[in-house]
Amino acid sequence: MHLHQRQYSHTQFGRRQELKLKEHFRVIKTCPETRARIGELITPHGIITTPAFMPAASQGTVKTLTPQEVQGIGISIALSNTYHLYLRPGIETIQKLGGLHRYMAWDGPILTDSGGYQIFSLAALRQIDDEGVLFRSHIDGSEHFLTPKIVIEFQEKLGADIIMSLDECVAYTDDVSIVRRTMERTHLWAERCLRYHKGNQFLYGIVQGGVFPELRRQSVNVIASLNFSGYAIGGLSVGETKELTWEIVNETAALLPKNQPHYLMGMGSPEDIVTGVALGIDLFDSALPTRVARNGALFTKAGRRNIRNAAYKTKDAAIDTECDCYTCRTFSAAYLHHLFKCEELLAYRLATLHNLRFIVRLLQEIKDNIRQGTFGVFQKDFLTHYQPTDQEIRINQKQKWLKSKENT
Amino acid sequence: MHLHQRQYSHTQFGRRQELKLKEHFRVIKTCPETRARIGELITPHGIITTPAFMPAASQGTVKTLTPQEVQGIGISIALSNTYHLYLRPGIETIQKLGGLHRYMAWDGPILTDSGGYQIFSLAALRQIDDEGVLFRSHIDGSEHFLTPKIVIEFQEKLGADIIMSLDECVAYTDDVSIVRRTMERTHLWAERCLRYHKGNQFLYGIVQGGVFPELRRQSVNVIASLNFSGYAIGGLSVGETKELTWEIVNETAALLPKNQPHYLMGMGSPEDIVTGVALGIDLFDSALPTRVARNGALFTKAGRRNIRNAAYKTKDAAIDTECDCYTCRTFSAAYLHHLFKCEELLAYRLATLHNLRFIVRLLQEIKDNIRQGTFGVFQKDFLTHYQPTDQEIRINQKQKWLKSKENT
Repeated sequence: MHLHQRQYSHTQFGRRQELKLKEHFRVIKTCPETRARIGELITPHGIITTPAFMPAASQGTVKTLTPQEVQGIGISIALSNTYHLYLRPGIETIQKLGGLHRYMAWDGPILTDSGGYQIFSLAALRQIDDEGVLFRSHIDGSEHFLTPKIVIEFQEKLGADIIMSLDECVAYTDDVSIVRRTMERTHLWAERCLRYHKGNQFLYGIVQGGVFPELRRQSVNVIASLNFSGYAIGGLSVGETKELTWEIVNETAALLPKNQPHYLMGMGSPEDIVTGVALGIDLFDSALPTRVARNGALFTKAGRRNIRNAAYKTKDAAIDTECDCYTCRTFSAAYLHHLFKCEELLAYRLATLHNLRFIVRLLQEIKDNIRQGTFGVFQKDFLTHYQPTDQEIRINQKQKWLKSKENT
Repeated sequence: MHLHQRQYSHTQFGRRQELKLKEHFRVIKTCPETRARIGELITPHGIITTPAFMPAASQGTVKTLTPQEVQGIGISIALSNTYHLYLRPGIETIQKLGGLHRYMAWDGPILTDSGGYQIFSLAALRQIDDEGVLFRSHIDGSEHFLTPKIVIEFQEKLGADIIMSLDECVAYTDDVSIVRRTMERTHLWAERCLRYHKGNQFLYGIVQGGVFPELRRQSVNVIASLNFSGYAIGGLSVGETKELTWEIVNETAALLPKNQPHYLMGMGSPEDIVTGVALGIDLFDSALPTRVARNGALFTKAGRRNIRNAAYKTKDAAIDTECDCYTCRTFSAAYLHHLFKCEELLAYRLATLHNLRFIVRLLQEIKDNIRQGTFGVFQKDFLTHYQPTDQEIRINQKQKWLKSKENT
């Protein structure tokens, strides 16, 4: 059987070139109490109803799952990392094999990030100036140089539906001069990315400015004055407190153009999504739901539950008795506990399936409530019952993770 | 949602107690040239057409796969290890949760082994006498004592369809006195297992005798004189050469009662299955197809292919262009290569799916050829084209594996 006979099917939308899509986003419904809204994101590989969550398909796969399963859960768009794919298998390899959609057999929309975040969090940074960034691979230590132009070319070759401009990220700091410098370079690179963008992808700009409201305001002014298809808030959840994160999201999101999509980068826990939607966020991405799943932390309406806990050893019911995912429909918490205790690979799949399905169902509830005008009540109710992970634990985990430079 | 609402469905056969099954096996068709035959194995959870292969579900899961997938591939019976399940989660835990079928959500037939092989290959053996065996767990070093009676009780509590008597295994040796002693103890235990067997499972006896034809003959005489539902050849593929293995299988299988199922324990590579069927084997089990899959070795009609090989980096076709499995229908060899290079968990699933589907399709071809009277030609043709793994590599791998006492 040859490759052209493989199951991969072209989407109803066909290639963007043929369609000459113009409109990318429209707001369908707004919440009377909060900034929450329902929107439609039009891409060459399908229309996504927002708010939407993008699971991490960093290396061209949502870890542990097949594209068929990801689609079956109800995930409508995946996020891949240009940095990871550049290092392995290489951008040209994917291009030769027909682009990222065909390579990973996912015919839904894909967003690729520019690699900025990974270069700063995973790679060994060697040198950075207005031209670009020299870094060493976290895999083999080899040296690489990326520029705004190269990063746009890479993303065009991958063929994602939505691509991101290159930004400079820094870990949380209260040194305003450092943050201002990285913000200004992000602005310079944003202009260059737009200039070099020739493909049919929708290109988004990224607002930086750390935890400084005045810098965030300046950054929105610059980025929103450029002709991007969408606007992302970057540089958050990098070590600051949750209160500070939301203060900045609140102030920044309020300034973004209302008729464009708003994307909060790198955040996507259940509580993040509910809170972010209320502040006007349309798109979320995070490796958290899938990463914590592999650690045995499963979402429920009451908060995360650790399936490794001895209490589950003989629990005959599903881990989340309200859930309709394959895992909860099929297996007892006791069995899932056993798989985790034995480090069976099936454990990580079943937990990932559950957490992603939990997020999809949460987004469905959010959308239903926005439609019915009851999102304000829903938000309060959800956050009252959902016990978030302790902030100290959270920040420790994050810093540990950033330090270990693990692959997400 | 409560457990009784989970997807697990009772088989058409219902509980064995209700059916009072008597017949367990019937031969449907024999090959005019070889000892190959098609049979039907009747169990409380369904009828299996033999020759059949049982993938290892050692800890209550075919590694990386859901029961839904295992069934979808066409696997009709799974093998679980009493030793593993006894140590984790514990026999009583599974019994309380409704038995092994319900615990692992597999409603097809299950065979459990007695734990004999694992005690000798994985655990630290402390002491063995006619009463039973004292050993230390390979997980935590805790001490345990198993007897023929206990092992039968355990398997009855697990509720498998086919259970095995306790045998004593030794690694390959040319010391006939050692082999005779272990064989005689195996015979003693076989009688005890039969005596203590109260449940409705089909209990099989195990023939031992190492690589000594005379001992094998004695062992068949003793074991076949007892009232077992099936007969297994144990104690092979434990370090001897492949030639010696087949010489012993050939001589032993010829002596087994013709109207009973013949089970060759611990062997199940493609070439083993084709050769074993020709010698009159009906049932195979092995962790090999799933274990080598996780190492990146994929079956094709020409032999195993290592997907990590650089030649696959840009190969646009499926790894096995003749295969109809999900992996081959959906992904290029290049993508699978990438997943293995990145150690993505999806890699191990996709490779496992392929190897098991390869075995199922091979068994289908074998059965078709037996039905058509062409199995002799098929066997020669298959073994001419299939390049087996080099014997030296194979024995080294096996000894390394036995030494490392890894979990299979």
